[in-house]
Amino acid sequence: MKNSKVTIILGSDSDLPFLQEAVDILTQAGVSHEIVIASAHRSLRYLQKIIKEREKRGTKVFIGVAGYSAALPGVIAAETTLPVIGVPIDSSNLKGLDSLYSIVQMPAGVPVSTMAIGKSGVTNSAILAIEILSLSSNRLRKWLLNYRQKLYKNVIKKSKLLIQKGYKKYLIEIKK
Amino acid sequence: MKNSKVTIILGSDSDLPFLQEAVDILTQAGVSHEIVIASAHRSLRYLQKIIKEREKRGTKVFIGVAGYSAALPGVIAAETTLPVIGVPIDSSNLKGLDSLYSIVQMPAGVPVSTMAIGKSGVTNSAILAIEILSLSSNRLRKWLLNYRQKLYKNVIKKSKLLIQKGYKKYLIEIKK
Amino acid sequence: MKNSKVTIILGSDSDLPFLQEAVDILTQAGVSHEIVIASAHRSLRYLQKIIKEREKRGTKVFIGVAGYSAALPGVIAAETTLPVIGVPIDSSNLKGLDSLYSIVQMPAGVPVSTMAIGKSGVTNSAILAIEILSLSSNRLRKWLLNYRQKLYKNVIKKSKLLIQKGYKKYLIEIKK
Amino acid sequence: MKNSKVTIILGSDSDLPFLQEAVDILTQAGVSHEIVIASAHRSLRYLQKIIKEREKRGTKVFIGVAGYSAALPGVIAAETTLPVIGVPIDSSNLKGLDSLYSIVQMPAGVPVSTMAIGKSGVTNSAILAIEILSLSSNRLRKWLLNYRQKLYKNVIKKSKLLIQKGYKKYLIEIKK
Amino acid sequence: MKNSKVTIILGSDSDLPFLQEAVDILTQAGVSHEIVIASAHRSLRYLQKIIKEREKRGTKVFIGVAGYSAALPGVIAAETTLPVIGVPIDSSNLKGLDSLYSIVQMPAGVPVSTMAIGKSGVTNSAILAIEILSLSSNRLRKWLLNYRQKLYKNVIKKSKLLIQKGYKKYLIEIKK
Amino acid sequence: MKNSKVTIILGSDSDLPFLQEAVDILTQAGVSHEIVIASAHRSLRYLQKIIKEREKRGTKVFIGVAGYSAALPGVIAAETTLPVIGVPIDSSNLKGLDSLYSIVQMPAGVPVSTMAIGKSGVTNSAILAIEILSLSSNRLRKWLLNYRQKLYKNVIKKSKLLIQKGYKKYLIEIKK
Amino acid sequence: MKNSKVTIILGSDSDLPFLQEAVDILTQAGVSHEIVIASAHRSLRYLQKIIKEREKRGTKVFIGVAGYSAALPGVIAAETTLPVIGVPIDSSNLKGLDSLYSIVQMPAGVPVSTMAIGKSGVTNSAILAIEILSLSSNRLRKWLLNYRQKLYKNVIKKSKLLIQKGYKKYLIEIKK
Amino acid sequence: MKNSKVTIILGSDSDLPFLQEAVDILTQAGVSHEIVIASAHRSLRYLQKIIKEREKRGTKVFIGVAGYSAALPGVIAAETTLPVIGVPIDSSNLKGLDSLYSIVQMPAGVPVSTMAIGKSGVTNSAILAIEILSLSSNRLRKWLLNYRQKLYKNVIKKSKLLIQKGYKKYLIEIKK
Repeated sequence: MKNSKVTIILGSDSDLPFLQEAVDILTQAGVSHEIVIASAHRSLRYLQKIIKEREKRGTKVFIGVAGYSAALPGVIAAETTLPVIGVPIDSSNLKGLDSLYSIVQMPAGVPVSTMAIGKSGVTNSAILAIEILSLSSNRLRKWLLNYRQKLYKNVIKKSKLLIQKGYKKYLIEIKK
Repeated sequence: MKNSKVTIILGSDSDLPFLQEAVDILTQAGVSHEIVIASAHRSLRYLQKIIKEREKRGTKVFIGVAGYSAALPGVIAAETTLPVIGVPIDSSNLKGLDSLYSIVQMPAGVPVSTMAIGKSGVTNSAILAIEILSLSSNRLRKWLLNYRQKLYKNVIKKSKLLIQKGYKKYLIEIKK
Repeated sequence: MKNSKVTIILGSDSDLPFLQEAVDILTQAGVSHEIVIASAHRSLRYLQKIIKEREKRGTKVFIGVAGYSAALPGVIAAETTLPVIGVPIDSSNLKGLDSLYSIVQMPAGVPVSTMAIGKSGVTNSAILAIEILSLSSNRLRKWLLNYRQKLYKNVIKKSKLLIQKGYKKYLIEIKK
Repeated sequence: MKNSKVTIILGSDSDLPFLQEAVDILTQAGVSHEIVIASAHRSLRYLQKIIKEREKRGTKVFIGVAGYSAALPGVIAAETTLPVIGVPIDSSNLKGLDSLYSIVQMPAGVPVSTMAIGKSGVTNSAILAIEILSLSSNRLRKWLLNYRQKLYKNVIKKSKLLIQKGYKKYLIEIKK
Repeated sequence: MKNSKVTIILGSDSDLPFLQEAVDILTQAGVSHEIVIASAHRSLRYLQKIIKEREKRGTKVFIGVAGYSAALPGVIAAETTLPVIGVPIDSSNLKGLDSLYSIVQMPAGVPVSTMAIGKSGVTNSAILAIEILSLSSNRLRKWLLNYRQKLYKNVIKKSKLLIQKGYKKYLIEIKK
Repeated sequence: MKNSKVTIILGSDSDLPFLQEAVDILTQAGVSHEIVIASAHRSLRYLQKIIKEREKRGTKVFIGVAGYSAALPGVIAAETTLPVIGVPIDSSNLKGLDSLYSIVQMPAGVPVSTMAIGKSGVTNSAILAIEILSLSSNRLRKWLLNYRQKLYKNVIKKSKLLIQKGYKKYLIEIKK
Repeated sequence: MKNSKVTIILGSDSDLPFLQEAVDILTQAGVSHEIVIASAHRSLRYLQKIIKEREKRGTKVFIGVAGYSAALPGVIAAETTLPVIGVPIDSSNLKGLDSLYSIVQMPAGVPVSTMAIGKSGVTNSAILAIEILSLSSNRLRKWLLNYRQKLYKNVIKKSKLLIQKGYKKYLIEIKK
Repeated sequence: MKNSKVTIILGSDSDLPFLQEAVDILTQAGVSHEIVIASAHRSLRYLQKIIKEREKRGTKVFIGVAGYSAALPGVIAAETTLPVIGVPIDSSNLKGLDSLYSIVQMPAGVPVSTMAIGKSGVTNSAILAIEILSLSSNRLRKWLLNYRQKLYKNVIKKSKLLIQKGYKKYLIEIKK
């Protein structure tokens, strides 16, 4: 068991493929992190144990990723006063709308910081965790500015290439 | 503390007014019941204690009534293998749709028996609890047949009155 | 014709593939069950006959599985005071939302115990039926505790494997 | 009991106030009609009896008006091959969307002619019934042309008044 | 140009494949019908001409089939007092919900008889047209009773086969 | 009849109260405008006449305001190649969502420039009309810059007042 | 950098394939246009620079194309008083509904002319831009009339072919 | 101008009444905060100036509160790498669903931490801000534990009172 700053809890291991970019970002930013599987409905007591343990071992931010009736992030928030980020996953017939409503519509008193449905949301949960941790880390603050700079420059680079090559040539190129 | 067959758990006491008819029905059917307030998000450990205690003291059916991101019925279902009935309440800006999705979209393995949003749903949760208990009670089975008979006769009585009086007179009468 | 504790009624035989896991669960739990096809719209009178017959022959719980405007579970509930479980199926352009609303939004007096849309919901309908029957069966009560235990242990086993192997190796393994 | 061309069946007498304009239109068009209360869920057998009786006594078009999980029009359609018009009513927390989906999403084979949610829909069900009956009635055909003419002229009259009086004066007048 | 009882107007020829079963049903019932392409937005004047012409040549029922913002059925209803059936098609990103709302939510005075989204709805529009025409045709009345009988018997046949063969064997058979 | 640059067509005079601010803006900007009532469903031919007439007399931009199944803006767009702005109105049980989908989901070839539901949308339709007309009018271009400047300054004025007075005093003031 | 009448700004180059028909239409109409990539969230300052620059160099209409939480068109509208057309793209799990709401629901004062979700909307944005520009260009006015004429004739051509060939032959032909 | 740890930015001063409890919580927790009005659409440049200024003066967390097409929180997130919390407000006809989708569905790279629609969401944004700041403040950590304790005890106190008094007496009391 590691002492990780960020603990990511998944409701099901079927959601693992969505985490690729989030894991890469946390790794690149040098933020220690750990991924755990702990369904709120099928293993509530294990989930509670995980939360208490990780909180003691230095976790600062929890990320809960869940589909269907996604009680997971809310239950984490019920057990800790650390910031909890929730990510709805598109695994049911309601395309993640059920999970979004389950996560975002928390009653007053127990907030869950909700992200977009699916892969974009998981990726953003990693960035938000870094933003939160950056409040007491100049290194992370710089990392974030650099990350944003790269996003910014990447847009401009593509835009200039498009202006230069023209619509048709650019389209052929990105389709390759 | 009573030894009740049905334990109704509310996420908030603001939902109490919706229970009137359900309480009347359980009382008329002679089914012992108890109402408890125990939010899944604000008092998870108390909720868990309540579930375990009531289960020991003879509760056979749990009813969870909750608004917003309604994790309550799912958490009850996570803690017991007794039948759990969930009722979504219209207390947020999403008019109970958030609660409906949170309650009904349970992942495979942990069912919650979901009712309609709001007062009709609470009333029906009491009837369903009686239906479940009636499987081992001839008295309740008869009570249910009698209850349905009354519903049935009431419709016909109204229909005959309407046919007899005509639209306009009947309308004036029901508006009184 | 069998004397089954659980009668599953399908609106259409195109919904049969969703039942695999539910049938396995009922079989493993040793609960007698029977599957019947009886559309509320195309064969209402046959449906009514089925309900009355099965009720006489010892059915304790009805499960109604239907897509589109899913009147089936509500019609079963109109004909019996036994517990009725309804499962919405994703077969129309509205992705099962039409069926969910048709099943869950029952008026006061006639409850239908509603499950999640699709396969998860069908599976959970079997478990809920067993939970209901377990109120008068110690054998089923034990079966349920054992079933939950397996779900619980399975989550922990996966979680430990993930912590041990790490994200990348685990991902490769589950993709196999 | 009358021998009416149009039989309007309401799921609940609470929907009666919506019928005012529809009743006026049928009366003005000289189309015999009758209003009956017969819930599909609370009084299915009575509903079926009503349908069979009215069909024998000369009903040509059925109108089913219902809120919540509105199985009523679909059940009428299951019992007759006469044209069935269904009107969803806004009586639940889902504002009639549940009823609209329940009525309009009929499976292939058993159509229900669906109208708009609420009062407009009830009014239009009367007009559609007259349109259907007009196929074998020159009198009704003329009545419809006249009715449309009045709608048409009424729009133009208002438009001309508005152009003549100007926005502010007209607004004051309609607010009176 | 034929003198058809039923005129089906499509907003686009891309909706043609949905019509197969509707065309077969009208043909089997011996109801003369004609299919025309006439978008309300791209060819409004042609659409109006078609409606007037067909009305003169004996059309009794119009069917309007359209996707996206489906103004077509409403425009037909604005031009005639014959019964108009509207079918929403799933061709946009809103999966036919846009078309359903555009067709069903007609203001008071000008009804459109709305069917389910997509192929089921198109099929049902043909059956409803026959139901309407059957009011003055004993032949069609018998055809409808026979059609329903076949639907009814088909359900029972499948149900009996399923009861006889059992779940697994039946499933293998229908998958073939 | 005036020769107006902007012709606003309402589906019903019940939508008139929403127009107050839009009329004020057009008047202040010195843009000639006219309001006409012409339902697409109840007075299609009158609507078409209005469009053709106004187009001849110098209308440059049409605004169509409609509730329910709002075919009006799409029909205007079908009859002219001038820019058409559509505003959905919240008059049905679907709260304007039906009108939004009816207006915005136009098929390729015939665009309608869609605004927000209700009063904000009507106000914005006037501003957009002025923006379009400003392309050939320096006076309107200046008017728009001035209008935006006022919006901008108004925000800052309020923000400074809030910072100066503090939350509680400001709140009391705006509640007066 | 070109001096283009129409500047199309994309939130992401992944939306480029949707532009094919819009680009063809602008090219055929002889309207100078330019495509730029400039995300509101990842490159806000670059976006602002682009808007100011293009406005100076003669852009008359902006088109903003974006998915997810599509702030892009609203931000363009915040920076200019030129007409801004917004097109929601179906790239997230909410199928473009998130983008539609983000674009169309602008507050009073800052309009965005909203198109349908996806490819149809992008195509229509080009046509609307031409309609706006046509107010001061007889050439474009004629081009539009001609374009509409072609759409019109194409519908009639298909309709006549369908009437002539019949359903089955036509269907085979379009499937080729 | 204060040097506040938390800067709350409102899109409109009409949203101020929702802030009462959030302001009280921040005050009780001793967290310096400031409220600013700065619409993303009507005063984008002022908003950008505010963000940059507050960031320099020590703001650690931004809260953006906005209705309609709520671009505000996303624009804040585009201008800073500090944590940004977004709260959707129910001010349009879409009841805050437009604002929720606009805020939560951020593309990958630029997260906004989204709260529930309306007053609960605003209150929770204050608590989440304190949770984030508590990572480097033992005092706030204790404050949060104490705040949660109060929520917890309050639930139990109510539950015990309800069990003691019974349903009817308790209901009368809370209605006072």
